[in-house]
Amino acid sequence: MALRVSTSLRLEKRAHQTIHWRRVCLSLEKEQIQMTHQKSHIGPERQQGVQKPYKDMIDITWGDPHRLGMKPISFVRQVIAACLYPELVHNDRFPIDVQLRAQRLLRACEGGSVGAYTATCGIPHVQRNLANFISRRDGGVPSHPENIFISSGSVTALTVRKTLLPHEEGPSKAGILIPVPGFATFHSMLETQGVEMVPYHLCEEEGWALTVEDLRRALQTTRGHCSPRALYIMNPGNPTGYVQSRESIEEVIRFAAEENLFLLADEVYQSNVYAVDREFISYKKVLSEMGPDYSDTVELVSFNSVSKGFMGECGLRGGYMELINLDPEVMGVVYTLFSTLSCPSVIGQIALDIMADPPQPGDPSYPTFSAEVHHNQKTLAHNVRVTQEVLGGLPGVTCQPVMGGFYIFPRLHLPPKAQEQARAAGMEADKLYCHRLLEEEAVYARPGGHYGQKEGTHHVRLCVMTTTENLRELLRRFQAFHLRFMKEFS
Amino acid sequence: MALRVSTSLRLEKRAHQTIHWRRVCLSLEKEQIQMTHQKSHIGPERQQGVQKPYKDMIDITWGDPHRLGMKPISFVRQVIAACLYPELVHNDRFPIDVQLRAQRLLRACEGGSVGAYTATCGIPHVQRNLANFISRRDGGVPSHPENIFISSGSVTALTVRKTLLPHEEGPSKAGILIPVPGFATFHSMLETQGVEMVPYHLCEEEGWALTVEDLRRALQTTRGHCSPRALYIMNPGNPTGYVQSRESIEEVIRFAAEENLFLLADEVYQSNVYAVDREFISYKKVLSEMGPDYSDTVELVSFNSVSKGFMGECGLRGGYMELINLDPEVMGVVYTLFSTLSCPSVIGQIALDIMADPPQPGDPSYPTFSAEVHHNQKTLAHNVRVTQEVLGGLPGVTCQPVMGGFYIFPRLHLPPKAQEQARAAGMEADKLYCHRLLEEEAVYARPGGHYGQKEGTHHVRLCVMTTTENLRELLRRFQAFHLRFMKEFS
Repeated sequence: MALRVSTSLRLEKRAHQTIHWRRVCLSLEKEQIQMTHQKSHIGPERQQGVQKPYKDMIDITWGDPHRLGMKPISFVRQVIAACLYPELVHNDRFPIDVQLRAQRLLRACEGGSVGAYTATCGIPHVQRNLANFISRRDGGVPSHPENIFISSGSVTALTVRKTLLPHEEGPSKAGILIPVPGFATFHSMLETQGVEMVPYHLCEEEGWALTVEDLRRALQTTRGHCSPRALYIMNPGNPTGYVQSRESIEEVIRFAAEENLFLLADEVYQSNVYAVDREFISYKKVLSEMGPDYSDTVELVSFNSVSKGFMGECGLRGGYMELINLDPEVMGVVYTLFSTLSCPSVIGQIALDIMADPPQPGDPSYPTFSAEVHHNQKTLAHNVRVTQEVLGGLPGVTCQPVMGGFYIFPRLHLPPKAQEQARAAGMEADKLYCHRLLEEEAVYARPGGHYGQKEGTHHVRLCVMTTTENLRELLRRFQAFHLRFMKEFS
Repeated sequence: MALRVSTSLRLEKRAHQTIHWRRVCLSLEKEQIQMTHQKSHIGPERQQGVQKPYKDMIDITWGDPHRLGMKPISFVRQVIAACLYPELVHNDRFPIDVQLRAQRLLRACEGGSVGAYTATCGIPHVQRNLANFISRRDGGVPSHPENIFISSGSVTALTVRKTLLPHEEGPSKAGILIPVPGFATFHSMLETQGVEMVPYHLCEEEGWALTVEDLRRALQTTRGHCSPRALYIMNPGNPTGYVQSRESIEEVIRFAAEENLFLLADEVYQSNVYAVDREFISYKKVLSEMGPDYSDTVELVSFNSVSKGFMGECGLRGGYMELINLDPEVMGVVYTLFSTLSCPSVIGQIALDIMADPPQPGDPSYPTFSAEVHHNQKTLAHNVRVTQEVLGGLPGVTCQPVMGGFYIFPRLHLPPKAQEQARAAGMEADKLYCHRLLEEEAVYARPGGHYGQKEGTHHVRLCVMTTTENLRELLRRFQAFHLRFMKEFS
């Protein structure tokens, strides 16, 4: 067994992208691991006639739809392809609205080329479309293009660090309240940026709800230790799948106003809500409706991205943030940061333009577009339901209802013997569980400890934004493994 | 005249992307300015049937070929379009080598899609191709894929800051030697990163050569003031156009070794050398040939990008750096930084792959590819020659020979009266010159002060990586303006 753990530790070390240098060279090794497993996980490459050189490992550590076999949205790819190679604009292969969109976007590019630099915060045309999108989403609440900062992706953490200046050491060191469990990559980003993490717990018993009591409790731990400046919220939640109600958001905003905290609302899963009794409401909208005491004062940054939502285009690198009520000086600091990054990827910007302004009924591309988007939405909702059903039937697993996002984060009630064995190996029981799952079933998932969890509890995060076929195979392996594991340690 | 200066100040304020927040909203205004000028500057949009909505200003402040009307390389755009929309792979519109390349790249993408995240430092397949490219370029000097860090562009400065850690204040604050004149954006990036800039002067009288005497002089200014850790070199130079000889590079490497300085070699213009008696030699190659005392010890980072070179694809955001002899701990720090950026744009990575591994003789795309690249190279060399001829015929202008890069940086010997007038307006005479040039001829160029220059000297940077037609118009306006300006103040 000790051997088995060390083997799977080695496997994880290879497969897992971590921040240590000695792990940099692992990409090649990863392909080798994949070679050792049977091919059963088929991505869109089969449909595209492209053959993958390696055999399958099911890697659900990423919230990356295309990696897990989801297909891109045709309209997105057609428009980008036509912008890249304008000869395609004038052929009948692409619907007329693709051609028109590509022409409009090329007109907005300097020199009519996606190969030219854009303004630091993005193409003004795309900023305007994003502002219109936000305003429509929020039932008419105005959004101003000059508050939209487009980026090539994760400059979030850098921005946070900049906006929290000055960041000294000791009691005046800037602190940021972050959810536990939460998006681990973001947390590790912030750690490298010299910002003090102040964890607040989400309430698992209430479906991972965010409560003001938990925020207050977290704030009390900071006294004399650091100076809390910001509150980071992820809504819909990763890994929890919780979606806040309007009342919950109002409470959080009042709390932020009382405590003079800058609000960072990570809303990248805003169009991935499938609970029948809950819809996404933006912090911006709620804030705007709480009257000038709040709407004119609370500082808010809201994040969104093409990596999630209906297109899942992680590799194109397109995101934006909207800055509300920020001190002009702080805006200047953020702008400086963006200038140092030259300009965001034009291709990511085009994807954002389509996210903001998708085909409408009556457009030639609409039927295909809407069928594809609907298919993805239906698949995600179906996968969540099926996964919850399977998990519900497993001994030692409890799972809160999931309202949105790409993930399910079940609690594992692992047998004492498994916990003893893990302790002996110097790890948490859910880490042992995930090592064994990787080793025995080639399913690569991350344990709860990676995202943070209350002491003594154990979880695993499953990404379910994948094809129905992949999910079926994933659940088959997971179920077989889980039953075996529970039996072995019972 | 005071009015005129203030008008042109206003114009520049509108047109110029700066780091101040109050200038963020200027993009729209910029379009309005452009509207007020006649359309004469035609980019590739005419060929593409795309009409730009605004009239022309010739903006030569950017080293951005497509903005200035240069056409993209077909092979680059075809491969990327086919990767984005794989249906294009299987049609006869694209040559077979485009189809094969797209298939190979898609196999290297997770899930067979450019929409999936890649490894933090890039797709291993692309890293390997870049290593091969570097090794070929350097006559067989080995390059290791794990030393290649692919990025979405300008993380250079951030990396520098990270690699120069710790960076305290006072005499132990990390210092970096930077060229004057130099790439201003890079300098301003570093300034925001808490690194002390230590300028060293390039010798204009010797064609902007980099001399060790000037480096030593710069180093002496740092004693008791900061702790110099790194030496930044741009070869070929921006804005100078100087290309170092092997001997010059050897001298610099010996200096870096003696002074224990980390070498940062910005070599993004490496394939834009047109002097008949000078070829680009990389720092890596020279270092590797200086024997183990140097080749095993001197820390070197070399930068390259698809924004320059033969494709000029600034908007696609693809760059890489190769790290040589770096302390593993420092490599770890750089890797951490890259992890916080998630992953580089997949489209930028594809462009890098093509830069590293372009079509070869015998490939179906080769004739077109090579004709296009040759056309761009010929245009650049022609533009440099013509511009130097025109400048050579103007009173009060001297210009060093230019060997590579996109720019010409002539010295302006401005009349005392112009200098007085500028002083009265609180600016340098070359700034006044550029304001007037913008106001009177709608030519937007930056004065020498933006890049740094010896006190009492004045310059202007002209980007000549544009079409022959644009250049002709640019020189027509520049010449007319210059003669008028010199006459006015004589």
